Amino acid sequence: MGFAAWRHGLPSRCANASADPRVAEPAPRALLLSIGSELLAGETVDANAAFIGRELAALGVSLDGVRQLPDDRAAIAAAFTEARGIADLVLATGGLGPTHDDLTREGLADALGEELTADPQLEALLRDRFGALGRMPESNLRQALRVPSAEALPNPIGSAPGWWVDREGAVVALMPGVPSEMRRMFAEQVAPRLPRRFELRPLHVRTVKTFGIGESAVAEMVGDLLERPGPGVSAGIYARDDGVHLRFSTRGDASLLAAPVEGVHRLLGEAVWGLDGDDLGGIALAALGPRGAATVASWEADTRGALLAILAGAAKRDGAARYLGGVLDAGGAAPLPVADVVVQLSLLPQDAHGRSRVRVALTGSVSLPMREVRIHGSGEQRLRRAAYAALDQLRRRPQ
Amino acid sequence: MGFAAWRHGLPSRCANASADPRVAEPAPRALLLSIGSELLAGETVDANAAFIGRELAALGVSLDGVRQLPDDRAAIAAAFTEARGIADLVLATGGLGPTHDDLTREGLADALGEELTADPQLEALLRDRFGALGRMPESNLRQALRVPSAEALPNPIGSAPGWWVDREGAVVALMPGVPSEMRRMFAEQVAPRLPRRFELRPLHVRTVKTFGIGESAVAEMVGDLLERPGPGVSAGIYARDDGVHLRFSTRGDASLLAAPVEGVHRLLGEAVWGLDGDDLGGIALAALGPRGAATVASWEADTRGALLAILAGAAKRDGAARYLGGVLDAGGAAPLPVADVVVQLSLLPQDAHGRSRVRVALTGSVSLPMREVRIHGSGEQRLRRAAYAALDQLRRRPQ
Repeated sequence: MGFAAWRHGLPSRCANASADPRVAEPAPRALLLSIGSELLAGETVDANAAFIGRELAALGVSLDGVRQLPDDRAAIAAAFTEARGIADLVLATGGLGPTHDDLTREGLADALGEELTADPQLEALLRDRFGALGRMPESNLRQALRVPSAEALPNPIGSAPGWWVDREGAVVALMPGVPSEMRRMFAEQVAPRLPRRFELRPLHVRTVKTFGIGESAVAEMVGDLLERPGPGVSAGIYARDDGVHLRFSTRGDASLLAAPVEGVHRLLGEAVWGLDGDDLGGIALAALGPRGAATVASWEADTRGALLAILAGAAKRDGAARYLGGVLDAGGAAPLPVADVVVQLSLLPQDAHGRSRVRVALTGSVSLPMREVRIHGSGEQRLRRAAYAALDQLRRRPQ
Repeated sequence: MGFAAWRHGLPSRCANASADPRVAEPAPRALLLSIGSELLAGETVDANAAFIGRELAALGVSLDGVRQLPDDRAAIAAAFTEARGIADLVLATGGLGPTHDDLTREGLADALGEELTADPQLEALLRDRFGALGRMPESNLRQALRVPSAEALPNPIGSAPGWWVDREGAVVALMPGVPSEMRRMFAEQVAPRLPRRFELRPLHVRTVKTFGIGESAVAEMVGDLLERPGPGVSAGIYARDDGVHLRFSTRGDASLLAAPVEGVHRLLGEAVWGLDGDDLGGIALAALGPRGAATVASWEADTRGALLAILAGAAKRDGAARYLGGVLDAGGAAPLPVADVVVQLSLLPQDAHGRSRVRVALTGSVSLPMREVRIHGSGEQRLRRAAYAALDQLRRRPQ
């Protein structure tokens, strides 16, 4: 929201205070503007915001708000003006393309009261880039525009350079909306500048991942660990397709997180399947390896390939079984890849309460008799939860 | 952003004007609050926002902004107060769970200046629901709280009821953050109320999907169709993993969209592979069916199952080939499912400019000699683009 919501609990800050950029400021507050009418029309999911939130948190920058804006020059200008008045760091993605509705450069120039002019160096870089690819469309010349206070941020894999503007105590960083270009520019250009510009205390995070117990039941079982996870530690609980996650974080010493993580293990026992970046597909394949299964194939019915997609994307771990591929709804007619172990998953119809039963079995050198597990959820989520319920069985009982 | 950005170009509106809810208002402006610290920490991607934006647009409601907020009671209250002052319709997702950090009910109650009290009917429904599942954790009782002006919106597949509050000319609708619950509540409870409450002119949208030509080259080729798509028609261009999309929309008569769609077909020829909800996987399988291929299997290397995941999720069309499954990186060691046609995809390493070559071939009753295609992009996007490049070859030359 506007001032009221963003400023809650924050020290007020004067937009026009002159700040010496050589002096690092404490605890920067950041805002993100996600620019593009396609976001508001629901044509694109703003996955960039989550990436940036995660990266900033790890660096020690608190993302206080995200705003999605349409491709409207005046709205973009007003948003930059307001955000620069509130935040120490304003990040923006999108609207740097070559087409008529890419207006982020213009909007920020208006907010800064600066002129856009063609930067000959940027233009040369653009022409070089297109030299390798063929003739450059004239519209791309807009991507060589810059205001005087903007430093250009290189984009080695796209035509839109970013901008870094440090004026009147507020930093603005513009990045492309194309996720691969944004991620690379963030990692190579924006992230390294932040600790040089601001005084940062990195956030330490531990996430404990569980499967098979509902969110409110988990919350009750861990009780005090959520309400009072320890001095300087924050706790959160999240229901995901791959189970309930408990997240502990601190800006103090990382060792403060050991006690709550240990507590969750103690209270939830074998419902815990992993930590932090662990993926349930990777954990399941890793559980099969030591039992003598070098390769795994899958057979699934009525899940539209959810199991196959998760296993194909699973993290590769040393000594884990290797996923070879699988078949869909084939009723036995299509031979499976020859594997040591075959995972079989069948999703039964949903009941009136939104619950479904899932049948899981393992055959081959590691086997598990058919068992039924309940899941809830609808649509795509139901399919993924069915697949995770199968993987949860694999990692629990790989005998 | 705050007032300045949201109000740009909109008629100003007094928050406290009393409105007769029986009188439908024209052209409602909507804002969405996505509530949850996990969004700002990047732990969750806000896919709900895109769903809601798309559904609202189709119904004729313009989503003017999306705001992500942390789980902070005062920040939530301030956001509702501000949003109710600007918008006719304020939607919010998240923060309706049973745990201590679910504060949307409290925040809205504060903004409305109303008391939260337990609703005996909601409590009975909750106890019924848990009756089937086992004992109800006491924390779930918070989900039976309601302010006097809120009408509860049933949630048949979860424990969090929604709220519909229509006061002082502004509607607020609260929905759960769990995507399946939110989608069902939107479809069954929120969407049907909107045309009864507001005067709506539905938006008509046509999207033309292409593959194989870059965004700025497409923009140049279609030229005037983007800049001047016709009276009352808006145009946009988007680079996606499955190619460049051109989107035309109008609040006038749907027939206004025929001319620009036809124009794109004429100017881009066989680069066009589909319209609207078409998916390239479904189109590729549909192109193989009439050539006599009833079944398809896949073989892919260095794409982490991207092709297999897209084909498994492809829309089923009458007469299309059926996808049976596939193998990964198996180097010929694992037998494929027996299929009429095998798609082979191999992704070569990325060059310094972020480009990669993709090798595609078809063998079996429909065949295609190995050919190379270039793609660009990094990370997951690169893998998906490789898979789409293969599917694009299938639909182009299925002989």
